[in-house]
Amino acid sequence: MEQRLSLITLGVTDLERSRRFYEQLGWRGQEVEETVFFEAGGIVLVLWCREKLALDSGVTDTDRGSFDGVVLAHNVRSEEEVRQVLAAAARAGATVTRPSGETFYGGYAACFTDPDGHVWEISYNPGFRLAEDGSIILPDFGT
Amino acid sequence: MEQRLSLITLGVTDLERSRRFYEQLGWRGQEVEETVFFEAGGIVLVLWCREKLALDSGVTDTDRGSFDGVVLAHNVRSEEEVRQVLAAAARAGATVTRPSGETFYGGYAACFTDPDGHVWEISYNPGFRLAEDGSIILPDFGT
Repeated sequence: MEQRLSLITLGVTDLERSRRFYEQLGWRGQEVEETVFFEAGGIVLVLWCREKLALDSGVTDTDRGSFDGVVLAHNVRSEEEVRQVLAAAARAGATVTRPSGETFYGGYAACFTDPDGHVWEISYNPGFRLAEDGSIILPDFGT
Repeated sequence: MEQRLSLITLGVTDLERSRRFYEQLGWRGQEVEETVFFEAGGIVLVLWCREKLALDSGVTDTDRGSFDGVVLAHNVRSEEEVRQVLAAAARAGATVTRPSGETFYGGYAACFTDPDGHVWEISYNPGFRLAEDGSIILPDFGT
């Protein structure tokens, strides 16, 4: 298995509500057969009906937990940008679960959940450089 | 908010078990302070303690659901490769939740869950071209 990811699909309960949420954050997607595809820098973020997603994956969706067990991170270039993105998310209807502040890894971050409770961290991590196109450059930790 | 993703963190209950699982699939990561980082083509897949991840995100993790509501997809170049990756995952201890077969979108795919129940789809989708480096090229659906 090559070491790469192609798509991340978020199960949603109301496709239009979720699409509007991400569009209010400035993202632009394409909707095809009740599925929304967002280019997200070499990978694709997809919104699709949660029930269909579970069925299609062969898993049951009887108990919805309080936490996905998955966090999506969007890294930015400054503390100010963390605060700006968090404010934009709040205006779009996100729930702020962790206000902007310093992190244990020497950075500055905030977290919010989207309309379906999917968690996003907006992070400024001085140890993780971003390329011009925004893609992340993992440091060599020397381990 | 720029239209891109930086990292995806999977909450895990046993870091070494999860690390071994992904390493058996051929991935190579770096472990730093009980966190494993895998380069995954412009983004980073991270393994971290589920409890810490929830706490750090400001969300509660009282009820673990039967489904994350999130599916990670790894697209490949042929049906044969779907079968090969699924077999490798099964050997590494994955639970196959959907055997290899044709999909409603005209492709061929299979699904498995990792040791913490995170769902992966291995997919051959003739409509989604892969670049030489494996990054996915979203078609213009004309919508």
